[in-house]
Amino acid sequence: MDCIFCKIVEGTIPSKKLFENEHVIAFHDIQPAAPVHALVIPKKHIASINDVGPEDWGLMGEVLRAAQQVAAETGIAETGYRLVNNCGSDGGQVVFHLHVHVLGGEKLGPLNGK
Amino acid sequence: MDCIFCKIVEGTIPSKKLFENEHVIAFHDIQPAAPVHALVIPKKHIASINDVGPEDWGLMGEVLRAAQQVAAETGIAETGYRLVNNCGSDGGQVVFHLHVHVLGGEKLGPLNGK
Repeated sequence: MDCIFCKIVEGTIPSKKLFENEHVIAFHDIQPAAPVHALVIPKKHIASINDVGPEDWGLMGEVLRAAQQVAAETGIAETGYRLVNNCGSDGGQVVFHLHVHVLGGEKLGPLNGK
Repeated sequence: MDCIFCKIVEGTIPSKKLFENEHVIAFHDIQPAAPVHALVIPKKHIASINDVGPEDWGLMGEVLRAAQQVAAETGIAETGYRLVNNCGSDGGQVVFHLHVHVLGGEKLGPLNGK
């Protein structure tokens, strides 16, 4: 499977890791849209939130747990942050391996991006 | 507790419900920022993602499961959508009862809102 995030999970593409456990990995976005911009992904390849099956909602909870921890460790927990998951065309999803953006370190704009 | 979302859960403030089960409720945002704009919340009062404790990550998975279902039922699953959770000041959180925005029905802007 030619998925850039699966390659990051495997380590065949390097990343600046922020968090890793058995099920989840987090790393800095290579094109940051805010002073802190991390991505949290399940190691399992799931294309988008539409594709999360009945057995994987616990895993999604783990993804959010890692996002909370990443926010704390990058120093934005108290100042505030935004978690974003884009799905499909209107959402602006670019990589089709589910990922949650963790954005902070500045006041973020309107939540519809407009 | 003087929480507007707890009052929506209790039914003392009306809402246009999209989904409800034992743990989660979803309803239309009264100030929509996109053609489809729903909010998904845990019934349990949790102020923000920072305040989710070890016992509640399964509940957060349920919140995302409801968001997936809301997207399907509002007809935006295939066209795409964005899930947003704002935390604290920089995130632009307004109501301090954890909520996930489901936004869709049009192309959304940049994920940092700028």
